[in-house]
This record gives sequence, structure tokens and C-alpha cells, in this order.
Amino acid sequence: MNIEMILAARDRLKGHVRHTPLLSSPFIDEIAGRRVYVKPEALQHTGSFKFRGAWSAISALDDDVRARGVLAFSSGNHAQGIALAARQHGIRSMIVMPKDAPEIKVKNTKALGGTVVLYDRARESREQIGERLAAEHGLTLVRPYDEPQVIAGQATVGLEIAEDAANLGIKDVLVCCGGGGLSSGTALSLEVHAPDMNLRTVEPVGFDDVKRSLASGGRERNSSQVGSICDAILTPEPGELTFPILKRLAGSGLAVSDEDCLRAMAVAYNRLKIVLEPGGAVALAAALYHREQVNGEAIVAVASGGNVDAGVFARALTEFGETP
Amino acid sequence: MNIEMILAARDRLKGHVRHTPLLSSPFIDEIAGRRVYVKPEALQHTGSFKFRGAWSAISALDDDVRARGVLAFSSGNHAQGIALAARQHGIRSMIVMPKDAPEIKVKNTKALGGTVVLYDRARESREQIGERLAAEHGLTLVRPYDEPQVIAGQATVGLEIAEDAANLGIKDVLVCCGGGGLSSGTALSLEVHAPDMNLRTVEPVGFDDVKRSLASGGRERNSSQVGSICDAILTPEPGELTFPILKRLAGSGLAVSDEDCLRAMAVAYNRLKIVLEPGGAVALAAALYHREQVNGEAIVAVASGGNVDAGVFARALTEFGETP
Repeated sequence: MNIEMILAARDRLKGHVRHTPLLSSPFIDEIAGRRVYVKPEALQHTGSFKFRGAWSAISALDDDVRARGVLAFSSGNHAQGIALAARQHGIRSMIVMPKDAPEIKVKNTKALGGTVVLYDRARESREQIGERLAAEHGLTLVRPYDEPQVIAGQATVGLEIAEDAANLGIKDVLVCCGGGGLSSGTALSLEVHAPDMNLRTVEPVGFDDVKRSLASGGRERNSSQVGSICDAILTPEPGELTFPILKRLAGSGLAVSDEDCLRAMAVAYNRLKIVLEPGGAVALAAALYHREQVNGEAIVAVASGGNVDAGVFARALTEFGETP
Repeated sequence: MNIEMILAARDRLKGHVRHTPLLSSPFIDEIAGRRVYVKPEALQHTGSFKFRGAWSAISALDDDVRARGVLAFSSGNHAQGIALAARQHGIRSMIVMPKDAPEIKVKNTKALGGTVVLYDRARESREQIGERLAAEHGLTLVRPYDEPQVIAGQATVGLEIAEDAANLGIKDVLVCCGGGGLSSGTALSLEVHAPDMNLRTVEPVGFDDVKRSLASGGRERNSSQVGSICDAILTPEPGELTFPILKRLAGSGLAVSDEDCLRAMAVAYNRLKIVLEPGGAVALAAALYHREQVNGEAIVAVASGGNVDAGVFARALTEFGETP
């Protein structure tokens, strides 16, 4: 991984991926005790930053390889990113998804042109299924985060932050973190284009493998992959490619509760008019409710959308719609 | 009103008002039967395009006049725009609001620094109250739409559409319409900068004074100002300044039902990850559910946010969250 790969990805993404704005609200600044700039990747195509990595990886393939199609395994957002980017490239995509993935994510992946193969995440390995299907059909496997061109694509979030927030006095850049593709890529972009900014990962409490790994120096595993509403970012352990980057460049990790996320979703609804999913709200939640662990008069929080279960969203509004 | 005033407003707004992007979704295009580009003024400061007009009007005042403060009467969104723009200019604002305005709008206006004066819209005239208070306190009244500098500010929406949608094959530009400030201003911008685009107003069924006025050629009144969930755009009749502009430049008007709006809010939530209020969803509703009355392979629909009653939003999600 290097900055040249990231700049090349940016060139390939141009015209296909949205350069998302920075949003802010005096109400949010008041709660957070500092200026907060939210980068709403919820407004990205398919609702999440995953589309950047998907487009980057597919557009980087040799023509003859790409023509045979691609394969992905994903709990949902990477799946939709791959399905749409594949369709826009005129190629087929096959997506391996857990049987217990939210129905709306399966439905949307199919609607975007992906062929969905379901598996049992308690008894089967998505990696093994993915590799077998790739071999059988001649498809290229696009991993969700441990894949250089995916990291390069997500890293364009960092380039945009470096450009748009250059003169805003930013210190910490808070990023939602599952396997670490977005956070490691963003860290690499900031290292070169905004060296004063400091990448901080945010995860759900109890699924803070990256936080613990950054503290110990080695890759720590989560004991479970279920039990948080932040399903989009529950991964077993930091990536092989992503963790060394984070170890070198990221500050200490942050962790937030499910309730923090629901509150942050309600704040985003009221004050920014954007729809976040729980896992995409962790960075804003940290900005709002863990201010003592965050540094800088001004910060950036990356927020993402994906597909939000209507019941979970209604709960966020009902329980926390009127409170900070 | 002329294009020079609009271009001057754009210069004053630069750096203070968000240039909102154009959003799209293959799911929306499928329902609408054409390409739809949504301009999400929900992402504007205070959640609605009203902030553009407020900033324009306040920034256009002579320094000594501005220093004495401003006054506005509004059901909510203009109020918040004026309150925030006044605070950012370092001046006081007094806002005359109906007693039955949504509580959240009153609360937010106060939080943004506005002094709120409530009145009874069944028995009192907000115009008379506003004029009396302005005289008593030396404040300048900023009307919500029949005010050239407000129209010039809202018109920057049209300049941005002309710029960002220049090569997208746009025919109709659908705009939510109350008193006509946004739609008349946008029409003036399109006339000069995108003459191939055609301004169409969208209103709630039963409160379609502009639609009926465009058909008859004279200013027609609504028989009531209550009875639709689209409270943000319920006005008695087209504006004195705005209607002649619309009469000259707008195509025939459109009208949508409350149910159309709730469905459009659910679609915007699912597919664009943005939060619209009912009155801000009328143009998207027309694009989605009245396609036979709309012209062009590609269109723009302006959408706005304001403050959405959580109960109404929950109803949109619950009843229409999963349907097109």
C-alpha cells in the first residue's frame, strides 16, 4: 500500500463516486464541546463508503479478468457496493451473504444485480465458500477490507477530508472501524496530505478488537460476532493488511455503546437530516458522548448509512429523538 | 428582480451557504421511469433552503440598518433561517410564530438565538403584528417570500442546478412551492443559465393556489391554511412579487396528496439516506407518483428538510417503509 495507489484509485473513481460534503450543526457542536464536521458517506452511492472500495477494486482488474465477473462475501454494504459497481462495469457479481443478514440487505443486493448465495455463519466459513465459488466460476474474489485496491478506494475518503478540512483546525479524525479498510486507507491519505490530522478508530463496546490490538500491539480477536446492533462493523479481528497500517498511524481506539449509537442516529436525523445505520454512527457517537477522549478544537467524524432496519431507526427516534 | 441581483446574492452567500449536491438512486429512477436528480436542501444549514434567503436578505442590508436587528414571521423554517443568519451576523432577531407551530420549530428557533413572539393564526394577522413590532423596535422586517433579496437568495438553488445538471439532459425542474420564493427565484436563474430547463411548482392537493393561479392567470386563494401535513408550504395565495414571475416562466403546476408525501419521505429515507419533511417531499412525490404529468428523460426534484415531527416520520416509515 502506498499513496500512489490511492491517487490512482481517486482517478479511477472520478465521476463514479460522490465526493461527499462536510456537514455541521451548531447543535452538534454544543453537545460535543467543539466544532464537529461530519462526513456523510451515507450519501455515497448504495449508502456507504463501501462503494468506493468496490469501484476501485473492480476498475483495477485487467479487462479479461474483470469480464469473467467478481465475487464477494459480506454482511451487506460491501455486497451492495460490489453489486452496483459490477453492474455499472457490465459484469456479473456473486455475493456470499450470511443467512441472518437483514432481509433488506439481501433484497437490495439482488435488486442491484448481484446473485446472492446464502450461508450459515455459525457453521460455515464464508472465506472457504467464497474461494470455492471463485474457482468454480472463474470469478475474482474481492475481499471486503484485506484487499489493497479496496483499501485504496476507501482511502479516497481521507483525500477528501484532507482537501475539504484543510483550514478548519482539525486534530482527530474519527472513523467507524470493522476490518479496518476505511480507517487504514484514510490514515494513509492523512499521513501524506494532512499530517496534522490524527486517525482514530471507533468500534462498538465488546467488539473492540482494533482498540485492544492497538493497545497490545498484536492482533486481538473478538470473542463473538453477534450481540450488537452495529452489525455492519462486527468483524472477528483486525485485517492482516490493515492492522500494521493502523498500528503505525492511528491514535488509541475508541469504543461506544449501542445506546450511544441510537442517540447519535437521532441527533443525525434531527440536526443533519441524514439517516445513519448503527455501525455507521459510532464515530459521531464518540464525538458527542466521549468528548474527553477526543482531541482538538475541531474534529471530523465519518458517518455511514447502509440499510437501516426500520424498527431500529424507529427505536432511535422514539427513545432518543428529543434528547441530546 | 433580475439576474444581477441573484448573482450578487450568490457572491454574498459564498462560504456561508452550502452548495448542495445532486443525489440519485437506481431504485428511484426505476419508480419514476426516468433519471431523477434530487437536490437535497435538507442538507442546507437549518435543514431548508430558507437559510439562503435569510442570509441574502440580512447580508444585503446597510450596516446601520442591519445593526438594529431583523424581524420575521414564519411557521418555522424561515424563522430558523433568520435566527441563525442573524446570529452569524452578530445582530438580534425577533420571530413572530403561530401558537400552533410544531413545538420543535419554536424550540429550535429559540436555540438559534431568535426571540419568539407567538400569535393566534385564526384571529390575528401576522403581517400586522410584524409591522407593529418592527416599528416599535427599529427592526427590519424580512418577509418570507415577497421580498426581492429573499427571492434572490433562494434563486441560488437554480444557479447550482444550472451548473451541476448542465449536461444531464434535464427538462423539468420540480420545486416545492408555498409562497413561491424558491420557485420564482429558481425560474429566474434557469431562464438565463439553463433555458432548456422548465420550472414546475408542486403543492399539496387542496392547497394548490399556485397551480390554480397558473391555470387561470390570476392570483387564486386557498380556502384554508390547515388540513395538510405539509405545514411548511401552506400559504394563503401566491405572492405579489413571485406570481408574475411564475406566470411568465413556470410550466403548469402539480399537486400531490399527503400519502404521496409520506411515501416519498420513506423512499428518501431508504434510497438517499436523507430526512425530508412532508412539505419538502412534494417535488420528489410528484417525480415518483405523477410521472405522466412530468416531462423529460431526466429531471431535478428539489427536496427540503426543516423539522420533521417524529410521529409523522415514524408513520412514513411504518406504513410505507418497504413499498415503492
